[in-house]
Amino acid sequence: MEDEMTQSFNTDQHNLWVKRLRIKMEPPSLKDNTGDADRLARAIKKELGTEKIIIPYSLIGSLPHRLRDLHYDCSVAIYEYGHTWNTIDIFSPDVGDRAHGIAMDLGSSTVVARLVVLTEAKVLEEISFRNPQVELGADILTRIHHAAQPGGLKELNGILIREINQQIARLCVEQNVNPDEIVASCVAGNTTMTHFFLNLDPYWICREPYIPVINTPGVVEAGALGLGINPRAPVFVFPNVGSYFGGDLIAGIISSGMARNDDISLLVDVGTNAEVVIGCRDWLMGCAGAAGPALEGGVAAMGMMAGPGAIDRIEIDPATSTIKYHTIDEKPPEGICGSGFIDLVAQLYLAGMVDMRGKFVASRCGSRLIHVDGLPHLVVVEAEESATGQPIMVSQPDIDSLLRSKAAMYTILTTLTKTVGIGFADISRFYVAGTFGSYINPRSAITIGMLPDLPLEKYQVLGNTSLEGVTLALSSKDTRDQATRVRDQITYLELNVNQEFMNLFSAAKFIPHTDPSLFPSVPPPVSQ
Amino acid sequence: MEDEMTQSFNTDQHNLWVKRLRIKMEPPSLKDNTGDADRLARAIKKELGTEKIIIPYSLIGSLPHRLRDLHYDCSVAIYEYGHTWNTIDIFSPDVGDRAHGIAMDLGSSTVVARLVVLTEAKVLEEISFRNPQVELGADILTRIHHAAQPGGLKELNGILIREINQQIARLCVEQNVNPDEIVASCVAGNTTMTHFFLNLDPYWICREPYIPVINTPGVVEAGALGLGINPRAPVFVFPNVGSYFGGDLIAGIISSGMARNDDISLLVDVGTNAEVVIGCRDWLMGCAGAAGPALEGGVAAMGMMAGPGAIDRIEIDPATSTIKYHTIDEKPPEGICGSGFIDLVAQLYLAGMVDMRGKFVASRCGSRLIHVDGLPHLVVVEAEESATGQPIMVSQPDIDSLLRSKAAMYTILTTLTKTVGIGFADISRFYVAGTFGSYINPRSAITIGMLPDLPLEKYQVLGNTSLEGVTLALSSKDTRDQATRVRDQITYLELNVNQEFMNLFSAAKFIPHTDPSLFPSVPPPVSQ
Repeated sequence: MEDEMTQSFNTDQHNLWVKRLRIKMEPPSLKDNTGDADRLARAIKKELGTEKIIIPYSLIGSLPHRLRDLHYDCSVAIYEYGHTWNTIDIFSPDVGDRAHGIAMDLGSSTVVARLVVLTEAKVLEEISFRNPQVELGADILTRIHHAAQPGGLKELNGILIREINQQIARLCVEQNVNPDEIVASCVAGNTTMTHFFLNLDPYWICREPYIPVINTPGVVEAGALGLGINPRAPVFVFPNVGSYFGGDLIAGIISSGMARNDDISLLVDVGTNAEVVIGCRDWLMGCAGAAGPALEGGVAAMGMMAGPGAIDRIEIDPATSTIKYHTIDEKPPEGICGSGFIDLVAQLYLAGMVDMRGKFVASRCGSRLIHVDGLPHLVVVEAEESATGQPIMVSQPDIDSLLRSKAAMYTILTTLTKTVGIGFADISRFYVAGTFGSYINPRSAITIGMLPDLPLEKYQVLGNTSLEGVTLALSSKDTRDQATRVRDQITYLELNVNQEFMNLFSAAKFIPHTDPSLFPSVPPPVSQ
Repeated sequence: MEDEMTQSFNTDQHNLWVKRLRIKMEPPSLKDNTGDADRLARAIKKELGTEKIIIPYSLIGSLPHRLRDLHYDCSVAIYEYGHTWNTIDIFSPDVGDRAHGIAMDLGSSTVVARLVVLTEAKVLEEISFRNPQVELGADILTRIHHAAQPGGLKELNGILIREINQQIARLCVEQNVNPDEIVASCVAGNTTMTHFFLNLDPYWICREPYIPVINTPGVVEAGALGLGINPRAPVFVFPNVGSYFGGDLIAGIISSGMARNDDISLLVDVGTNAEVVIGCRDWLMGCAGAAGPALEGGVAAMGMMAGPGAIDRIEIDPATSTIKYHTIDEKPPEGICGSGFIDLVAQLYLAGMVDMRGKFVASRCGSRLIHVDGLPHLVVVEAEESATGQPIMVSQPDIDSLLRSKAAMYTILTTLTKTVGIGFADISRFYVAGTFGSYINPRSAITIGMLPDLPLEKYQVLGNTSLEGVTLALSSKDTRDQATRVRDQITYLELNVNQEFMNLFSAAKFIPHTDPSLFPSVPPPVSQ
């Protein structure tokens, strides 16, 4: 099942749920006075070999003029849902038979969108842009509260949809595609983001017992959502398992292929929340827990999102304590992103510059260790080398924060595997997902004790699995329908933060762990 | 199959396509964090025993507040279409479990509407009101031309929907029903009227090859039509066979029960157009032809629509030439409606006051025969007896016009029966439908040679069969679905107005006919 992603993205015309058909009709005559809408439906039925065709009311009014203009020879866009084919629109046959779609991963800070030729399973262009809701609330909880204000939900929905529409319009201009020819969309996001997208009130999501308005939105017409594509285009919104287990993770499960594997896999989406799923084709169990913002680079003073100029890889020569770093796009360094931060702490540990507790070892750090506002800081990049003209540093609290995050992650992984009654060794494949995940170095993550000490070949770094999943679902009915099946299949484990959890968490706050036998591949710290 | 109408209108709960269900859900808890919409869908599925439940997007947003207000105990209105159940709305269980609907016959001059408790198949109130489109065009053709003007269609649609909504609002106040609790509607009309109702351009209906925009509109949501009932209420619009064979006649076929009879029946809807269907459970053939406006009382100077004060029955004593008349509601006479006009000409003929050609016989008419503007007129009611203070008269041209109409009708009936290869005697039941039809006296219609000379017991006068049909379809899925089956079953006979037709027509312009052997029950004219 390796390369599931790539394989599934081959176009199987029989598996398309959005199609373009060339439909030539006999023009009306006294011998056949069938109405225009019925004539079109009859021709589509004949072409598809099914009786279940709907010509929606909103399309009917324009048919007589357009069919006559096209001399009853047109290209029809249709979509299947619930074993019924719905007509989206008719086009001149001159525009060809490619059906375009928009795949979207709705992140709370970043939205990534792809313009896809879904009939060819081909990505024309991918763009990412800041979620404009950040202006109304940096984190999801602030936005949920904002939504509860009068007009707040409408504002949050409106600002998001407007930005998406502007970006789609830009994509269309660049790719020379008429927005009306975008005839489908698939969207995934965390549960709150999909609520904002659907203009549904997330009020109860963050209040016990944490109830979403909807788990399985299925298909909604673009027009009802105000989306700037064909108004009858189906928008498939990935289902969620609950308030804290969103459609983005379902999309990730699907793109990883784990729900089709015989062996047990584990998928972890690393972000502010650690979202973890374990299982195989027969069963799936998932849980989500707060890991803190350290892993997304949101806490460290010099932290930044992965992007040009972010330090994403670090090596330290234990002999000389020399720090070598790499930046994204090899731009002058501006800050450190999450994966760079994990590398840094792993390398500091291996070089003896921090101890098991993550505390700076002054004797090994040398002149790099300075004090700012009374707190110890390590200079990673000198001022003269940095893009900002300021030194790039990490503070002791930054490292403490990362260790709490990695401890939370490891504890969640331990709890979940214990619950299903297996050990880490039973996991045959360990998928690391998330925008952040695409830069992570599993070796470093093991070194700091964030991920279990498995053979490196078991780790597979997948990147934005949510975006991959929605892209696949655009071109494949199987994949789209699998989303709902997978959702129904998942047992959600409510993390019980009890004394046992806290004990595990405390033991995991060390590098790599209070019990080093759990991490045999990690060398003992350099003697100080 | 007698009393088909009454029988079918018994409520069969298993045959309802619009239902109200009492749905009690377990309120959300940490043990069951299912989303509100999914919780509702799950409960409905359980109650109905089917998987095919849709909670439409437009309903979802309001669910969380409302379900909590109702403590997850509500009454749900749902409807079935295409083997799927759609959720219309949720209500407080306090409002009970009656589902209300609106049945509507869209006439080009008069709209008749019924407020129905469809779950009990009970008519609460029936109202009729003038089609306000008359202001924009007295006849259908003028309106089709008006629709082709800029904004014309919107105007015709708007004036109709607004009037319907005002009338529905009035019905609701009178019957103490909240418009949101009207959760379904069934509508029939001629093809052009249903196009106006659906805001579809009838431009091509009156132009060769006479193509409607749609034959089978099926179910459209009330909100999309701007109808002032629950916006998610399904509106079933009866299908048409073509531009000149409308859903009103399909509804009539259904309410007559003829499509379920083993024997051959004939249904004639008498109006400006003579619409005729012949057949049985195995086959149906229909045709429509212009009969002229005489039969609806639209031509005679003293003609009027059936209504209070209209003379609807006339008897003449052949010995004394005394005219006895009856008016609707026994109000002072204001004019003569179609059925009264047929009675009048039949009685004038039997009394020898008109001859076989329909010409006044001066010697038998006496002082009742006067000349106005050089044309012979017969005074039916003297000025002192009439409601208007003016004498009520018919002119020679009025009678000529009626004879052309009746000749057209008889010719159409002859042509249709010849085409299917039967004689009138093979017809076991002859249904006379239409608002006009409810007042017609078959004996008189036979006397003037409008209807064939069959035993009177074969005639069944049904009244507004269209309204009966739509009313039945509101409470019965079988009936609703039968409408589409019957439509598909009908062979439409395009009337070919050729020499043979014109010969038949000329022969039929006499009273009762040039060949009196076709009308053995009609006595020869009184010798003059």
